[in-house]
Amino acid sequence: MADVKLHGFWFSPFVLRVVWTLKVKGIPYEYIEEDPANKTPQLLEYNPVHKKVPVFVHDGKPVCESIIIVEYIDEIWSQNPLVPADPYERAIARFWVRYIDDMISAVLLPLCRSNDIAEREEIIKEIWARFRVIEERCSGDQKKFLGGDTFNIVDIAFGSFARFILALEDMFEVKILEAERFPHLHTWFNNFMDVPAIRDNHPDQEKLVACIMFMRDKLR
Amino acid sequence: MADVKLHGFWFSPFVLRVVWTLKVKGIPYEYIEEDPANKTPQLLEYNPVHKKVPVFVHDGKPVCESIIIVEYIDEIWSQNPLVPADPYERAIARFWVRYIDDMISAVLLPLCRSNDIAEREEIIKEIWARFRVIEERCSGDQKKFLGGDTFNIVDIAFGSFARFILALEDMFEVKILEAERFPHLHTWFNNFMDVPAIRDNHPDQEKLVACIMFMRDKLR
Repeated sequence: MADVKLHGFWFSPFVLRVVWTLKVKGIPYEYIEEDPANKTPQLLEYNPVHKKVPVFVHDGKPVCESIIIVEYIDEIWSQNPLVPADPYERAIARFWVRYIDDMISAVLLPLCRSNDIAEREEIIKEIWARFRVIEERCSGDQKKFLGGDTFNIVDIAFGSFARFILALEDMFEVKILEAERFPHLHTWFNNFMDVPAIRDNHPDQEKLVACIMFMRDKLR
Repeated sequence: MADVKLHGFWFSPFVLRVVWTLKVKGIPYEYIEEDPANKTPQLLEYNPVHKKVPVFVHDGKPVCESIIIVEYIDEIWSQNPLVPADPYERAIARFWVRYIDDMISAVLLPLCRSNDIAEREEIIKEIWARFRVIEERCSGDQKKFLGGDTFNIVDIAFGSFARFILALEDMFEVKILEAERFPHLHTWFNNFMDVPAIRDNHPDQEKLVACIMFMRDKLR
């Protein structure tokens, strides 16, 4: 059997992408919970450039960066494919993953950090504008999932942030992914959370909110 | 024969990646030079999300984002492969492409814009720190190319910025990619520029400097 390890933080949306991928594919793995303040020597050796999680280790060989790990796992373990087989469909999926990584990720940290209500409202407006693009362009055809009728890498990429945003909604007592504002995304999120590998593997909401509260105080 | 079109700006390092890929593979294509101030309706239709070049159009179907286009072309036209066939080598290549896109691209625009010598020196120090990572980690084994003994997608990704930096060196009368400071990268750049598809296809240096000078005045 392959030797499969994952170094992560339990609260990281990027690590969650890899956990979901492994669960979707039914791959057993050893999970190493890293301490942000005191990372293991293995992590630093495996990812000397960024020193970040997730790091996926397959038979002793490290792979870094969440989406690169997801594509790697998908190429090695072919069951329940996450990257479309058709090259054009694959390019489209990669386009949306890139959009999500560049445009959604960039507004989440400022929102976590924000201590000012007016500033937070501005950031939320920006998040809405970026969600609007996904609502209209990506999920606009009302398929069951973002990538089409079957669950794929685009769902994993966006779902990890959507899950994190639920915690921010609780934390700031605001609604961001509202059903009225984003009917397609709202339906998608319910479909997404119904996938067993997703439903059964995500951080406890209360614990996640407490963790983000703690981290944002450290970030300031 | 496939209907292949590329919408671009002649001065864009991102467009240059696609041009090089098409030339390496010997794929004939129609090139549509876009006007940054007055983009064609086709471009806006093909890339409604970002409204940016490059846009690659294959049999009427658009693909956006330079590296996604390079991977797509490589998957459709298998001659002179640019993405490694081995999944682990592929993940490593993607890691470096991502590093180059996130870390090098982010410091080029501030350098173009900078009008203050002290500020520019600080940016150049940051560029050096990021080049150092590529010098030591990526090209540190003194292979002929960044991706190994054969030319690949990592060379295309970094080469497009290295080519652009040569113009910035002329413009600001500074040395950035110095032989003494970066011996591996310097050797690599000579090997890279010796590849016929690269040597014969890059913007005229003087024209590129004039263009960047014009653009930076507009950016401020």
